[in-house]
Amino acid sequence: MPRPISATIHLSALSHNYRIAKKYGGAAKVWAVVKANAYGHGLDFALEAFQEADGLALVEVDGALKIRAAGWSKSILLLEGFFHAEDLPLVAQHRIEVAVHCVEQIALLEQATFAAGTEIRVHLKVNGGMNRLGFKPAAVDMAFRRLSAIRAVKVVDLMMHFANADDETNVRLPVTEQLQRFAQAQAALGDASLEISLANSAANLLNASLKNDWVRAGIMLYGGSPGKGSAASFGLLPAMTLASELIAIQELEAGESVGYGSRYVALQPMRIGVVACGYADGYPRHAIDGTPVLVNGVRTSMVGRVSMDMITVDVTGIADAKVGSVVTLWGQGLPIDEVADASDTIGYELMCAVAQRVQLIKGE
Amino acid sequence: MPRPISATIHLSALSHNYRIAKKYGGAAKVWAVVKANAYGHGLDFALEAFQEADGLALVEVDGALKIRAAGWSKSILLLEGFFHAEDLPLVAQHRIEVAVHCVEQIALLEQATFAAGTEIRVHLKVNGGMNRLGFKPAAVDMAFRRLSAIRAVKVVDLMMHFANADDETNVRLPVTEQLQRFAQAQAALGDASLEISLANSAANLLNASLKNDWVRAGIMLYGGSPGKGSAASFGLLPAMTLASELIAIQELEAGESVGYGSRYVALQPMRIGVVACGYADGYPRHAIDGTPVLVNGVRTSMVGRVSMDMITVDVTGIADAKVGSVVTLWGQGLPIDEVADASDTIGYELMCAVAQRVQLIKGE
Repeated sequence: MPRPISATIHLSALSHNYRIAKKYGGAAKVWAVVKANAYGHGLDFALEAFQEADGLALVEVDGALKIRAAGWSKSILLLEGFFHAEDLPLVAQHRIEVAVHCVEQIALLEQATFAAGTEIRVHLKVNGGMNRLGFKPAAVDMAFRRLSAIRAVKVVDLMMHFANADDETNVRLPVTEQLQRFAQAQAALGDASLEISLANSAANLLNASLKNDWVRAGIMLYGGSPGKGSAASFGLLPAMTLASELIAIQELEAGESVGYGSRYVALQPMRIGVVACGYADGYPRHAIDGTPVLVNGVRTSMVGRVSMDMITVDVTGIADAKVGSVVTLWGQGLPIDEVADASDTIGYELMCAVAQRVQLIKGE
Repeated sequence: MPRPISATIHLSALSHNYRIAKKYGGAAKVWAVVKANAYGHGLDFALEAFQEADGLALVEVDGALKIRAAGWSKSILLLEGFFHAEDLPLVAQHRIEVAVHCVEQIALLEQATFAAGTEIRVHLKVNGGMNRLGFKPAAVDMAFRRLSAIRAVKVVDLMMHFANADDETNVRLPVTEQLQRFAQAQAALGDASLEISLANSAANLLNASLKNDWVRAGIMLYGGSPGKGSAASFGLLPAMTLASELIAIQELEAGESVGYGSRYVALQPMRIGVVACGYADGYPRHAIDGTPVLVNGVRTSMVGRVSMDMITVDVTGIADAKVGSVVTLWGQGLPIDEVADASDTIGYELMCAVAQRVQLIKGE
């Protein structure tokens, strides 16, 4: 009854990938990052698959409350902290830990009234040069002192995020430079006993010497590459298979074109399969001719511009391709990163973009 | 409590744009195309705004049933028809009209059993060279005869879709060529009395001489350009304003970089605003430095790579920019097509990509 497109979520792959994150993290505890509806995999499925996680981290306050309501009793961390004063009573009541990255958040904590016995665990964010969130090293001590003066607040952690953990050739802001800035921030705090959290997936997988107490594992949990090296090379398994069906076949003569803009022109007679999947399902409109797809498990190429609800694929060499044939867009048998490469983007974006109209199905 | 990002849907703009579609369509009836959750605007809001529409068209069987259940009594059309045999009883029961574009669909209709008195209104799709859906002109008469032989089926319409209605310079498959092929199909049918439906938004707005009984208005209803000429130049109003807030400000020295890959480097001291909006909200990761945004209503530039949950914008010249300032990503005051241009895509994709975690709010 729905359109024939669905994303099967492989819960065992999610669990497996979490264990890989633990393995690479050594003694570190690992946050399973489940923001953006668990990178498009569904928060409910993620919760089920990450039962053994040390904690769950996300950016959505409502998502955090949902997880708590579903019975998750271990740590929950808001990676961007709270956004508004009205978030604070909820954070306090449901024991949600928060990043604090700016003085405006500190001021809200200072102004709030908390019940006696409240403890809000704060992860103090250091801006190590990425200039997104966090205090510059010179301001970290001030932030720590102000936070420590608030009765309900307990600063537990120093966090930083790398701009280029996936690219050791970046000379503008190498990992080493960020680590030096982080060390400055630590030194300013003297002997304050704080845990540290530095590694995202890329740092966890690619920077073996990095020491930290908490890893923040995101893309790797979902079987995507952190930017360098294939996911498979780290032992990661795809956690989502996006699949649809052929809904039509067209026989083309040489010289005929396909789709909007007539971008693709057949050089010889071809059979074209039309797939119920378009950019409004989350398939990338930037995908070029030749982007890989599987039809009945056989690898072939997308051709022609991606439409809102359809793509067109070459089924010339796939004799058994017919209306109803299964088409795999990415997942088991076809790494999402290959489709991302052909669309000039990253697997992260594709996973997150899977649209509401695509059914999420629980798989092995 | 949710993250500070929302999409306000301007219902009066939707209604206004529908009337523009009617105006350009002349005597034609106009389908309001509401597929893909009304191009991301929400099916419920669209239903409310398009009350005066001649009919609603979409590709989702479940969406069609939802519209009917919500009380819509006028025509509903499935633009790709039904997908599986089990769709047919629902289509019949709820008086949903269907495109028929392939012989497999005809076979399913032939094999099905319908209650006496059932009438399924069929729109016969002609492949005019776009080679997506439809029968080639030489096969249209066969399709019409087979369909007409089915007691429950009434063929009411011949439909075609243009590949290049937005681009008169395309020589591979010009509108004129498609019209010739359509005329062949019509001629083969002799004096069968069928309505015709040719024009999508682009054809409706840009090809004034086109005659048809039904226009299929999509992108124009949502205030987007059909590809040539600004939406405003046709009198269309933006129907969605995507807005968020600054959640942090960073002061940069000359030479400092921003975000992943350190793509953007400040040439002089700058103030950078961090916005709670990223590609997991549907903001395009392909957006280049300089992509326009409004901060407190003042136009400025996005700088640095789009992250999953954040973008960074230049607020150097916006003295009152602070944490909590309103940031308009597109919509009223900033045409979505400008953001699409800066991301090497089209407004259609951006609208449809607005993620589930972005609240849709009913606006004027």
